[in-house]
Amino acid sequence: MAHPPTRPNGLAYKDAGVDYSKIDPLKIDAQRAARETAGNLAHTGFTEITASRGESAYVVDVGDFMLASITECLGTKVLIADKMRAITGKTYFDALAQDTLAMAINDIITVGATPISVQAYWAAGSSEWFDDKQRAHDLVRGWKEACDKCGVTWGGGETPSLGGVVEAGTIDLAASCIGIVRPKERSTLNNKTKPGDAIILLASSGIHANGVSLARKLEAQLPDGYSAMLSDDRMYGDALLDPTVLYSPVTEALYKGGIMPHYIANITGHGWRKIMRHEAELTYRFRMIPPVPPVLQFIQQHAGMSNADAYGTFNMGAGFALFVAPEDARRTVEISDDLGVNAYHVGTVEAGPKQVIIEPIGVTFTADDMHLRA
Amino acid sequence: MAHPPTRPNGLAYKDAGVDYSKIDPLKIDAQRAARETAGNLAHTGFTEITASRGESAYVVDVGDFMLASITECLGTKVLIADKMRAITGKTYFDALAQDTLAMAINDIITVGATPISVQAYWAAGSSEWFDDKQRAHDLVRGWKEACDKCGVTWGGGETPSLGGVVEAGTIDLAASCIGIVRPKERSTLNNKTKPGDAIILLASSGIHANGVSLARKLEAQLPDGYSAMLSDDRMYGDALLDPTVLYSPVTEALYKGGIMPHYIANITGHGWRKIMRHEAELTYRFRMIPPVPPVLQFIQQHAGMSNADAYGTFNMGAGFALFVAPEDARRTVEISDDLGVNAYHVGTVEAGPKQVIIEPIGVTFTADDMHLRA
Repeated sequence: MAHPPTRPNGLAYKDAGVDYSKIDPLKIDAQRAARETAGNLAHTGFTEITASRGESAYVVDVGDFMLASITECLGTKVLIADKMRAITGKTYFDALAQDTLAMAINDIITVGATPISVQAYWAAGSSEWFDDKQRAHDLVRGWKEACDKCGVTWGGGETPSLGGVVEAGTIDLAASCIGIVRPKERSTLNNKTKPGDAIILLASSGIHANGVSLARKLEAQLPDGYSAMLSDDRMYGDALLDPTVLYSPVTEALYKGGIMPHYIANITGHGWRKIMRHEAELTYRFRMIPPVPPVLQFIQQHAGMSNADAYGTFNMGAGFALFVAPEDARRTVEISDDLGVNAYHVGTVEAGPKQVIIEPIGVTFTADDMHLRA
Repeated sequence: MAHPPTRPNGLAYKDAGVDYSKIDPLKIDAQRAARETAGNLAHTGFTEITASRGESAYVVDVGDFMLASITECLGTKVLIADKMRAITGKTYFDALAQDTLAMAINDIITVGATPISVQAYWAAGSSEWFDDKQRAHDLVRGWKEACDKCGVTWGGGETPSLGGVVEAGTIDLAASCIGIVRPKERSTLNNKTKPGDAIILLASSGIHANGVSLARKLEAQLPDGYSAMLSDDRMYGDALLDPTVLYSPVTEALYKGGIMPHYIANITGHGWRKIMRHEAELTYRFRMIPPVPPVLQFIQQHAGMSNADAYGTFNMGAGFALFVAPEDARRTVEISDDLGVNAYHVGTVEAGPKQVIIEPIGVTFTADDMHLRA
């Protein structure tokens, strides 16, 4: 395939086929209708945690503990794997399985939950998808290994063949997860975050599974496509497929160590703008930034993205944010580092308008830069 | 579009793009790997109900009650709605929303659960899908109304845009659901079914959402396509889009009336073969069959299907099966009828090999006709 020469081209996320301005209004309508169903819980004697609406997982108080639930999908990362297989011979579906579970598990733990079980949703474009035994086996194996890493049971799932809905030759991967918040004091949904809290960023492994459409669009513009070499001598496509870090071992270790984060944000779509997800009016100031993975440096450079675009789209090396009491900051970093997940105490919560100030790169995101809530 | 003339053509489900022989081996591999994760629950103090593996929902004993979870998708029924809109102007996405929720809710109630909350998964082929305000509004409204009918809260969901994975112009609809089995005696996973039990079949509204690929394939062979008229003077395509009956109001009313079914089967893919889903060696004998909806009569006739093919693929008028103590049969029928869901006491559980004997049509399905379990 011929590629046009690489050039700074100001590739914006909207150009890559994901237009958040079109998705978010429906999301907000749906959230509004969903809120109106809250009363349906009355006959169970359980109580909805209203503050969980608009957060990453839905939470219900069931008496002895709280129950959290979520459904998340992988997105278009499978399309990269399909192309890379022709280059390296690997299926990458073990990595994609971990990515898919990470989308659900890294979200459900933000409310203070311990994930307990997951359901798989694997919707293929045709029955033939399942004929490829190596790929199917890698998917099953990767899914199981990610469950084992996070201490969750794999409860079951759905493996439909959806010709005409899912594209031929590909698969739509998603996961749902249930978790428990026990003791209930672990809940991050009660405005514990306050000025002075330390912000600990946990290292990402690369792009994770957000911003992938843009990474794919860039590939089409590179002379060597996914075979382009990064600064660390890895292939662009191979590095894109590094699986998302599973952060639940870290949060579980924190609880065991007696540390309860005040708030937690999973840095996914909208990049660092997700750091101001909490509903309170607070300022999040970063004096330093974690190292940027070579694959994200590469994308920013070759797509000609400003720092504001890059940090507003990608995780830029920070896959997860923990907001903890200042006296817990050092141990939080140690516990995470000990588990092999590099942690950086680089930010502080301050009184002030809702904004994320990233001092080293001179970027500020304000509340106007993200509207996720109805 | 030109259509070949209608003719009996022996259309088999495999010809319509869904080959269960290819899907089931992966399903069985996945079930095996999933079973191996059961020990991961140990750290929570909860106990997996092992018998729920291979059943329609995954069940965990959490102390005061059991927790059930499931993820299910609608399938390809959206493709019928897209074509019918050009004919009638209706979007049908309110009906499809009910269908999607029915796939999850009608399954989760089979273990004896009261559904409590759902998550939506709406994966569109592009952001443009959400530009159609009427369609998006109908989807949201239908989803909420179905939640209200079943007394569940709509906890949230995921609305990704997946260009390259989901076909342009369409959407992959799925739902996950959590339910509780309380009191635990409601559980249908403990071999309560026994010879002498009455089998009550609950009426379906039509095709529901299984066998849809075959119905679509037939459309392409009909001179009038979806505009073909049924025996009740309705359009083929319009009747196909009658939403799946939500059966949870019936099961909830049974519990309120003091009736606990011994076993419950949701009749979906594999049609009446699903009636022998229970793991025990038992014979299920039907002396009568419920009325067959005109749309299913039409498909059987025009696709040239034998009774064995038709009853082994479609619900044929029976969307749900309740296995109750013989002394509860009459009241079960009354309670369901009172809710507007016609119920038929037409079958009996007998000692004998695993088989479904449908006497009026001379069809018998044996254990060899379905392998869902590892």
